Amino acid sequence: MIAVLCGGVGAARLLRALADVVPAESTVGIVNTGDDTVMHGLSISPDLDTITYTLAGAIDPERGWGLRDETWRAMEALDRFQAVRPDGSQAAPTWFNLGDQDLATHFYRTVRLAEGASLTTVTAEISAAWGVRQRLLPMCDERVSTVVTLADEATDISFQEYFVERHHAVAVSAVRFDGADQARLTAEAAAAIALADTVVIAPSNPIVSIGPLRALAGMDAALAARRHTVVAVSPIVGGQALKGPADRMMVELGHEASVVGVARLYAPIARALVIDPLDGHLAGAVAAEGIEPVVVESVMSTPEIAAALARATLAAAGA
Amino acid sequence: MIAVLCGGVGAARLLRALADVVPAESTVGIVNTGDDTVMHGLSISPDLDTITYTLAGAIDPERGWGLRDETWRAMEALDRFQAVRPDGSQAAPTWFNLGDQDLATHFYRTVRLAEGASLTTVTAEISAAWGVRQRLLPMCDERVSTVVTLADEATDISFQEYFVERHHAVAVSAVRFDGADQARLTAEAAAAIALADTVVIAPSNPIVSIGPLRALAGMDAALAARRHTVVAVSPIVGGQALKGPADRMMVELGHEASVVGVARLYAPIARALVIDPLDGHLAGAVAAEGIEPVVVESVMSTPEIAAALARATLAAAGA
Repeated sequence: MIAVLCGGVGAARLLRALADVVPAESTVGIVNTGDDTVMHGLSISPDLDTITYTLAGAIDPERGWGLRDETWRAMEALDRFQAVRPDGSQAAPTWFNLGDQDLATHFYRTVRLAEGASLTTVTAEISAAWGVRQRLLPMCDERVSTVVTLADEATDISFQEYFVERHHAVAVSAVRFDGADQARLTAEAAAAIALADTVVIAPSNPIVSIGPLRALAGMDAALAARRHTVVAVSPIVGGQALKGPADRMMVELGHEASVVGVARLYAPIARALVIDPLDGHLAGAVAAEGIEPVVVESVMSTPEIAAALARATLAAAGA
Repeated sequence: MIAVLCGGVGAARLLRALADVVPAESTVGIVNTGDDTVMHGLSISPDLDTITYTLAGAIDPERGWGLRDETWRAMEALDRFQAVRPDGSQAAPTWFNLGDQDLATHFYRTVRLAEGASLTTVTAEISAAWGVRQRLLPMCDERVSTVVTLADEATDISFQEYFVERHHAVAVSAVRFDGADQARLTAEAAAAIALADTVVIAPSNPIVSIGPLRALAGMDAALAARRHTVVAVSPIVGGQALKGPADRMMVELGHEASVVGVARLYAPIARALVIDPLDGHLAGAVAAEGIEPVVVESVMSTPEIAAALARATLAAAGA
């Protein structure tokens, strides 16, 4: 069994690639929920949905999130409410785009959670509805909210306000995970990590995607205790994030935006770090951080490259 | 000023017709909220929305509810969740059809109510967003739920389960309005009734559309006190409901499904009852109930007929 610590797009693509190498049923994704939010009264779990839709073959390939052949009629119809919305109201925001078909997933999740079902249970139901064969687990059933402090304004905003509304184009001075100290890695996720032959840290943002998982009590200790079978895939290639703001965010928060910076973050919990040949010249510097560099093409631009990456990742963990 | 006690489709059409006869700004609709429901976590007010969309010229003319040129992608996407929904869960029902554009209205209402705005306030905002010039008021800000007891099964179901899921094709043995004893006619609605020159009872279902308004404390007394300026339009023509189950429901609950049955219900609170020429032979029987029959074509099949009905209705109230 393979447990994969997941953010969104990068993790989704690695999970899809792993299914070309090992049976899908042998993989468990343990997914960041720090990005989860409530919009229009609906409970939204962006990373879980990106992974579900990707593994279902339903993701929009251009955007990397949301469903293919999507329409946006509900969102367009929200426009008329902007003029009447009182100051300070959170009603009818249009910056967080939800497709019409995608809404059904949020409807289902919202009602099931209101009925008292855990996010773990609801996620299993949604995965099953989409025919996903990998097991997907939210990292916790409690609400954890990633909060970003803006460097210029010294104000706190939610992750989605930072990522979507501000297009992650503003400098960040701090990141915190509200609720993480009260939340617990679920029993299912803890068991998956305990029982897995290999733990893979997906090529997701180390700060805001993998960070919330590591903020849960006992997570780092559990990984450190089995560090010899944990392997991470660098989300930084050639000093740049494959997607999103990981590179800028790392610099803003005092890390190095390179595979060496990633190595420093993951050395306590992983024995190997998969890096792209573009960063081959930094292999020595990675090793100097106490984590074994494994040089493999890691930009998953074709299914073949992705499968080779998945194979090399498992091999690096001794699987 | 004219205050109109409203259900859904019939009331919407009469309000539209009144706007051809008097300035729209001089009309206040006081609207049944007993049909209101929560679906997919969203607060839905079917009668208010039918009236809003009708007065905005956006109603679907075939269905009589919902928006024209509507799409149903979100609802269609709910199908995949039917197979994974646990027994007894209320998640993802597909029998209550919500159009994609219509969803925006429910999103807005849901969030504003959650922010603590009253339904009266939110209704004014939604009306303004749709450019409606008539004033629309929910009958109360508290939640009132129309509950229907099925004759065969002696079980209670919500109004929407009766009306939409069961297509109002089942016999009813009782109707009640849960919460009505705790609810209050809003100050705005009470003032509108007190200050109006004329009160019109729209051609809506007397039991489940006008019934909830009359179940509010003081409503019947307020109408009775000014009975000489209250006029009702019969929703029963030729012994049949213009729309919906009013005729069957009246019989099932011990009333006569005719203008005479309607006259009996409204005689304590209205001085005149507008009936169609099809029921002209019953004018004497209506008068015998103590309410003045006014015979006018009342099936609003053309704008001209509707305007003539509106004009005759106001005249019948002495306006």
